Formats: sequence, structure tokens, C-alpha cells
Amino acid sequence: MISGADGVSVTRADVDDAVARTTGQVRRTPVLAAEPWPTVDHPPQHGDADDRRRRTEDADGPLWLKLEMTQHTGSFKARGAVNRLRSAAESGELTDAGVVAASGGNAGAAVAWAAARLGVPAEIYVPTTSAAAKVRRLHALGATVTQVGREYAEAYQAATGRAAQTGAVLCHAYDQPAMVAGAGTLGVELWAQTGGVDTVLVAVGGGGLVAGVAAALDGLARVVGVEPVGAPTLHAALAAGRPTDVPVSGLAADSLGARRVGRIAFDVAVRCDVGSLLVGDDDLVAARQWLWDRYRLVVEHGAAAAMAALTAGAYRPTPGERVAVVLCGANTDPSDLP
Amino acid sequence: MISGADGVSVTRADVDDAVARTTGQVRRTPVLAAEPWPTVDHPPQHGDADDRRRRTEDADGPLWLKLEMTQHTGSFKARGAVNRLRSAAESGELTDAGVVAASGGNAGAAVAWAAARLGVPAEIYVPTTSAAAKVRRLHALGATVTQVGREYAEAYQAATGRAAQTGAVLCHAYDQPAMVAGAGTLGVELWAQTGGVDTVLVAVGGGGLVAGVAAALDGLARVVGVEPVGAPTLHAALAAGRPTDVPVSGLAADSLGARRVGRIAFDVAVRCDVGSLLVGDDDLVAARQWLWDRYRLVVEHGAAAAMAALTAGAYRPTPGERVAVVLCGANTDPSDLP
Repeated sequence: MISGADGVSVTRADVDDAVARTTGQVRRTPVLAAEPWPTVDHPPQHGDADDRRRRTEDADGPLWLKLEMTQHTGSFKARGAVNRLRSAAESGELTDAGVVAASGGNAGAAVAWAAARLGVPAEIYVPTTSAAAKVRRLHALGATVTQVGREYAEAYQAATGRAAQTGAVLCHAYDQPAMVAGAGTLGVELWAQTGGVDTVLVAVGGGGLVAGVAAALDGLARVVGVEPVGAPTLHAALAAGRPTDVPVSGLAADSLGARRVGRIAFDVAVRCDVGSLLVGDDDLVAARQWLWDRYRLVVEHGAAAAMAALTAGAYRPTPGERVAVVLCGANTDPSDLP
Repeated sequence: MISGADGVSVTRADVDDAVARTTGQVRRTPVLAAEPWPTVDHPPQHGDADDRRRRTEDADGPLWLKLEMTQHTGSFKARGAVNRLRSAAESGELTDAGVVAASGGNAGAAVAWAAARLGVPAEIYVPTTSAAAKVRRLHALGATVTQVGREYAEAYQAATGRAAQTGAVLCHAYDQPAMVAGAGTLGVELWAQTGGVDTVLVAVGGGGLVAGVAAALDGLARVVGVEPVGAPTLHAALAAGRPTDVPVSGLAADSLGARRVGRIAFDVAVRCDVGSLLVGDDDLVAARQWLWDRYRLVVEHGAAAAMAALTAGAYRPTPGERVAVVLCGANTDPSDLP
């Protein structure tokens, strides 16, 4: 077994602990029973016409959409943030110094929200290049915002230093066990809501969500990570045998733009045999539009990657396969949708 | 008992028939367990401090959002259209002449979609003033579109004549028993999904949805119709003791702009003691934005009326009251939301 940073990994037991910590604190987001997806054609080799007809009619298994964009702060990150802060509170790590994080995106918003919910201060570090709207949003969530450096790495270094100085809890956007296990609560919930699935398609950025869901459903369902070609962190890591830096570009860079997959995520992905698929930026745009046209659902481009695996044909279910697609965030401007 | 047109009304039995006809044909749309809504303050008159504290902590009942905008063609109208066409097929009324309707909006799209699903032709009549985008959408759904007259009434008259001429089924947008009973299937579904509610808030246009849900939940829950002040068809009818024309204006005129409430809807509303509330156009805008900001849900202005009853304070739940809000459509341009 390949192990993550410092031998740290995440298992179903960690996810179950996270369920206990987060129940009633985060939303149990709904699932939508979508129309079955056309399956791979497997004509019977030794069947008569009746047999063939029956197979065609019964071929398509259910397709579920997990509406996680309706979560607090508009993405799954709220699950990890609550689990991280509540486990830190249990262990005595969380003090009046509160929490520090580096992220102008979904993780930063989720940490700010979770801190406010627990009544502790949040300091969020973002690069000076962050959009004003993101900084305003963090302020609105009650956080203190510090803008440092031109790149994320500099903001992260400053956040690390600040946490060491004040004793605040440092909350990583994805590569901490409590963040991964918290994200995994989505998998437990999905399983209960659907009565079981065979395959779960999940968008990958830093890998916290795909790893959490894979740990949650280890031995129950196959989890497939889907990434845009412009940010293939999991794909590159699985090819290289270790987390490795990739150049990040394209539409989903904003939400899925981690430069390398987390060490915990890589460990879990290998252990749980997580699949990996790539889709193009055009596929993200088309899948996002398809979700609006057909279901009146809005997702961010990164979250559309999971849907694009089906709509672009990168993933083709087999007859009867029960598939779930996680729609993990909608921190997006919907003005291009109608 | 006041009875509707020609003594026609709709009861729970009609809704149960509609459930049998529409199950598997329309989507079972999800419900979202939202945060409880702050309730009316009822301090105990004869309680001690402990009693008061307990009441405050336990005061808020659940709040459910019914995500009906994820229905086929983006609104609840698909339920009525399928029920209307399938009951017409059962009775032999539906022939190769197909179906005729007059509506450039949600009802027209739903009828066109349901006809295509059943494999019969749909002819949709709309005024010449209809937006090109609406006509294109009807074409895309496979309908033949005829533009007649400057007002809806003229298009409706032409549709009636056409149905009489060809023998096609005439599908009214709301004032037919099968349309009302079909819409009511939403109420049965909501009850099963939530395990029971005390109050359901529903937007009112022609009244088909509010009447269907009231018939479905007769004796089980109280149904409250919510209308914008610019299109108060139910409010005016209840005040006058009969359906009466009202001037229609404002933001929701597009989706809720029926000039008077249906006769069936009025009959059911009186029989089932349906409540009636008004909200302003500013309240619609605020409620629509609130749903996006807080839950990343997009609804049309008319559908936001039901939510606005809570967000604008027109409806105030009592302690422990279980409330559901029906979000019934999202045929809207979301570009003003971010």
C-alpha cells in the first residue's frame, strides 16, 4: 500500500467519524433521478431476437445527479471545513486564535463560513491577484482577508507562518485527512439516498472530494475522477506513480486549478482503484449548458467535468449500470446560460 | 359547495388517477431540506424560564423546497400535459389529429413535449407578439406553431376552432380537470418525500397548480396561494366570490399572467380553504436572488412568489410548523443573478 504524507491516509472509518461530526451542520443535499443514460451496446452473442429486444429495453440503469452545489457556500467544501474545525475542537487544537487558510475560492469561503458557524475567527490569505468579488465575499462571510504575493503558493506560505505565530488551526484546501474525510460524507449520503450505485463520477482538482468519496464507498462502488485536459493532476499522478506538478490552464482553472493532486488523495486513489478520465474545455461548456437546458441546474465549469464524462462520451455505462454524477459546485456567473 | 365549470371539479381521487398515469412519465423532482425558517414569536404566557428556553430552541419546524423547476421543460406543466394526453388516449379522445393548445409559455412547451413523448402531433397557437425565442423553443420541441392575433385570447379562439375542425384534443393551460389533477401529483409526491407537512406555499397564475396540490392534500395540509400584486387572480376571485378579470402587469406577467383564475381552481380553492397572499415585484426579485445566493437555485420571477411569501414576511410560520415551498419553474434568463 502506497501511503500519503507522513503515512497519513483516510479510510471509511474516518469518513464515518466525519458523518457524526457534520450531521446537522451541513446540508443533506438532494439527489435528482435523471433519465437513464444510453449504454454501451453489447449485442448478445448467443441470444435470439426476443433476448436481444429484452436486453435493449432493460439495458439502462438509473442515473442520479447529486445536487451538491446547493450546499452551504455553494460547494462541497463546507463538509471538509466543518469536519476539520470540529475535529480540531475535539482535540483541543482549536483555540480563540481560530483558523487560517489560503484560498480565494470555494475552500476559503467554506472555511470562513464554518468558522463563523463555530464562533471562531477566520483569517484567509489570498494572492493580490484575486478578483475583488472574491475578497468581498470572504469579508461578507466574516473573515479577515490578507492579500499577499502574486501566486497562491506565496499566500499559502504566509498563511502557514501566521498559523505558527498565532496558534490558529491551519486549514488546507484539500490535503488534510479531516478535509478529505469531510468531503467523503457526500459519498455516504449518496449511497443512502440512491439505495446503492455502481459508479460515481467526480470532478478532480486537488483530489479531496474524489478521495473522500472513494474512501467512503471503498468496496461498494467504483469512483472515477474526471479532469479537464488543462488541469490533469490525478491523471498525471497515476501515470507518474506519484503526485506531480502539471501546468494548469483553461476554463476550470479557477475551481479545479490545483497544480498537483494531494498526497492523501493520491494514496486513496491508488488504494481504491479510482479511475481517471479527461475531458476538453469544450466538453465542460457543453455539459454545463446541457444541465441548464435539460434540468435547469447551474454548475461551475469545473463541476461540469463530471457530467461531461457522460455527455462527451468519455464514460460509457454498461447495461444496467447504476451511475451517479456529483455536481459539486456552482460558484459561477450564470449570465452566459440562457 | 360551489362547483366549477359545468359542475366539474377535481378531488384527491382524480389526483390518484393522475399519479398512476404519470408515474415514470414525468420526473419525481427532488426536495431540498432547507434551514428552518424563523417563526412567529409566541412567548409562553404561563411558562417559567426553562419552558421559554425550550420553546425557543425547539420552535422552528422544517422548511422544504420542492425543486419542480427541474421537471421536463422546466416547469410543473409537464405533469398536467402528460395526464391530459394519457387520459385522452384512454378515453379514445386522442387520435392521429394529436393535440392543440394556445400558449407561448410553460404550458405550450409542456404540451409540445408531452405530445412528442406520446408520438402525436402538437399544434401550438401563440399571438404574433410572442418572443421569437419562445417560438423557436416550441419548434425545437417538434410542435407546429401558428401565430394568430395580437393577444392570447385570439390565439386561444383560433386553437379552439382548429381542434373542432380536426378532432384534435384541446389542451387548456390550466382550466381542465386533467391539467389540475396532473399538477396535483406534485402534492402527493411532496407529501411522500417529506413525511408530511403542515403548509404548502404555491405561486398562482391560472390556479391549476395551487388547486391540484390543494385537492391532493385535502384534509392533510393547508395550501396557500401566493400571487404578485400585479396579477392577483385568486385573491380577487376569493374577494368577489367568483372568478373575475384582473388587470395584469409586472415582472411575473410572463408566467403568472392569466387574467382570471380558472373555474376549477376557484372551486377547489373554496372547497379546500386555500389561503391567499400577495407579494410585491420587489419581493419577487429579492426572493429569486436569495434562492441563488443561498442555495444556488434559479427560478423564474413568477415561481419566486412562493418563496417571497417567507422572505418578505407575508407568511410567518408558527413554532414547529412544517412548511414546504414549491419552486415550480425556471424558464428564465439567469443573467441578472450573479
